Amino acid sequence: MSGYSQSIKNLLEHFESLPGIGPKTAEHLVFYLLNHSGQDLEKFANAIIHLKDNVIRCSKCQDFSEVDPCPICRDNQRNSRVVCVVASPQELSALERTKEYQGTYHVLGGVIDPLEGITPEKLKIKELLARIKKDNITEIILGLSPDMPGETTMIYLTKLLKNYNIKITRLARGLPIGSDLEYADEITLGNALRGRREV
Amino acid sequence: MSGYSQSIKNLLEHFESLPGIGPKTAEHLVFYLLNHSGQDLEKFANAIIHLKDNVIRCSKCQDFSEVDPCPICRDNQRNSRVVCVVASPQELSALERTKEYQGTYHVLGGVIDPLEGITPEKLKIKELLARIKKDNITEIILGLSPDMPGETTMIYLTKLLKNYNIKITRLARGLPIGSDLEYADEITLGNALRGRREV
Repeated sequence: MSGYSQSIKNLLEHFESLPGIGPKTAEHLVFYLLNHSGQDLEKFANAIIHLKDNVIRCSKCQDFSEVDPCPICRDNQRNSRVVCVVASPQELSALERTKEYQGTYHVLGGVIDPLEGITPEKLKIKELLARIKKDNITEIILGLSPDMPGETTMIYLTKLLKNYNIKITRLARGLPIGSDLEYADEITLGNALRGRREV
Repeated sequence: MSGYSQSIKNLLEHFESLPGIGPKTAEHLVFYLLNHSGQDLEKFANAIIHLKDNVIRCSKCQDFSEVDPCPICRDNQRNSRVVCVVASPQELSALERTKEYQGTYHVLGGVIDPLEGITPEKLKIKELLARIKKDNITEIILGLSPDMPGETTMIYLTKLLKNYNIKITRLARGLPIGSDLEYADEITLGNALRGRREV
């Protein structure tokens, strides 16, 4: 990095601190931006400064929102008694894109992952339990990824929720669309077999 | 992206407009930043705003710099009569990291690439030719990548520079260190054979 001027080095450091961006990508981005006008840079910078300006957390589902409750929680068309538990706003957004779901959500803010220092106390589990009675919840869908931390969290939540008289479900496991049966792993294939449906 | 608030969508768009950053990475970055303090965001934004503040182009080598001439061009220890032509500041930086080179540079600002609309007139070739007499240049090293646009540019420059009484060289082609001969392509292997040296 010798030879780069201080202001370039400064932005390089900021980009490199972002997840998934290494020194090469950071260089690429900085020199891309150097070819832009000062006005463009200002617009970009403003978008960063104002990122959190109007963003709060919905007091019901804990999702990021500009209003409280968030547009989903205040939507009367949606079934507030069915709640899908997700790890983060990205997963919520992925489920919304399916346009299949008419219930509401609860954003945990992560999954249990002791190696990353994420213990159950750091997640919005207390807030979920408080909603069960308050919102008269009848079903909780565990909408977490079927990986190690996701499964751990679902086991933990299932144990907790068993004490309440509500239905607990989880997303179906099976073959993803477009996948090749020949190359599917045994666990996925086993899940697909066990979860087979009549056609 | 439904459901994301305006300020989030705004920064998402900015990130997505950067090269090599798709919608997923942009989401990842924005939610990473959302978990940071307003102060951190301001520091990042300031680094962007001030990116070009003190950055000018060296009037000799055309590299980005905070002073004119740049630290390399004003360094008396370096041989200003040997000039290595590079496409961009990144390549200059890569060559500097080798600590092998004691000459100076000339940054073209790209390579000839008609498909991308980069014609010779858009590169700093005029400035290079002007330096030959002014700096009493004895050798020009064509330090461009051995890919299609790089080769095209080197052929173009060689034709131009033949009119001057100077040495024109190019970087050696051969097997990269750590590579497996078995998997080397024929052109690289052919270059390595032709460029073989006595040991």
